[in-house]
Amino acid sequence: MRLAELSRRSGVSTATIKYYLREGLLPPGRRHNATTAEYDEEHLRRLRLVRAMIQVGQVPVAKVREVLGHVDDDSLGRTIRLGAALWALPQVPEPDADDEHVRAAHEEVTALLDRLGWENAKRLTTISPAYRSLVVAVAAFRRLGYRWGAEQLAPYAELMHRTAVLDLDNMETHPSEAEGIEFAVLGAILNEPALQALHRLAQEEETARRYGFE
Amino acid sequence: MRLAELSRRSGVSTATIKYYLREGLLPPGRRHNATTAEYDEEHLRRLRLVRAMIQVGQVPVAKVREVLGHVDDDSLGRTIRLGAALWALPQVPEPDADDEHVRAAHEEVTALLDRLGWENAKRLTTISPAYRSLVVAVAAFRRLGYRWGAEQLAPYAELMHRTAVLDLDNMETHPSEAEGIEFAVLGAILNEPALQALHRLAQEEETARRYGFE
Repeated sequence: MRLAELSRRSGVSTATIKYYLREGLLPPGRRHNATTAEYDEEHLRRLRLVRAMIQVGQVPVAKVREVLGHVDDDSLGRTIRLGAALWALPQVPEPDADDEHVRAAHEEVTALLDRLGWENAKRLTTISPAYRSLVVAVAAFRRLGYRWGAEQLAPYAELMHRTAVLDLDNMETHPSEAEGIEFAVLGAILNEPALQALHRLAQEEETARRYGFE
Repeated sequence: MRLAELSRRSGVSTATIKYYLREGLLPPGRRHNATTAEYDEEHLRRLRLVRAMIQVGQVPVAKVREVLGHVDDDSLGRTIRLGAALWALPQVPEPDADDEHVRAAHEEVTALLDRLGWENAKRLTTISPAYRSLVVAVAAFRRLGYRWGAEQLAPYAELMHRTAVLDLDNMETHPSEAEGIEFAVLGAILNEPALQALHRLAQEEETARRYGFE
């Protein structure tokens, strides 16, 4: 397809597509001559991913380039390739290691991983932004004086593990590994807000079931 | 306790506590004389909640006042009181009703609620920000050309319902209704990031279980 059709099918203006091409976020089309190039379904898919990252996820252009570099790097194993793509997305900053609540939170999260038998996640604690985010969230609860640790988190963790199983089952319905990884990145940007919304809707439903509307 | 002790126990500076008092985010202490007042455990609890909303949730002061108004309004039934408190937190803007993907998303989310038998959530669709957020997220997927609707969301919704059951069970461990509602607001601010982090950790664990580290 020509640039105009790529624009029509993606809903992205030709000026923006040209910008993405210049920034290397989209591979060049196959050149016919000096002014026209041909694009295919892979360009369309990649364009949608770039669009979702920039517009919905508000990921800066340099980060988008980094994420795409990992998505495309088939020299890595799938776990690392997927991890590297997701880890390049915006993350919470490193918590203050000298803070007593942060130290307690590290202990609680480690105890949680032991209790769950998440041996693989334990191997990744020094590099995983997800581990860091969890420590930050648990430390915030504890700073407010709430007991919130392995015991309270374990039933939530079991439900989130089932959620992750659904995610990977969905990912595996995609024919190629690269497409599956693209879908996982989209999931982190689009499906996480959907899950949060579903969770709040479910809270409303369950609250009304327990206490009615009066 | 005096102001100095309230500051020490909460970790919030006396200057900030005075500011919260002036803004009406914290009820005044019991006056001894012109310069000293006495605060109790309820002040401490309320101060921690205000702190979490402003510092962790980045909720503007006017919104904090609005949320607290709902938390304290015992003329409302519990479902509405809880809803009003949570709905005053920052939300996504109203989606464009003329957009074809938004219309399709409304249909899919309605079909989802029918399928799940969430009759209470259905009654709240015109006013619930959670419903609106879900429509926005589903529309974003569809705009990118992904089939994402009732069928794909149903298994996630079942897991989020179980998550909501845990939330309300935790809320019910708090002695008074006001404390339970405060805890639910804190959960929306602190536990949602924790759940997102647990979800990503679970994805890492499950990815490594399926594909190893090579």
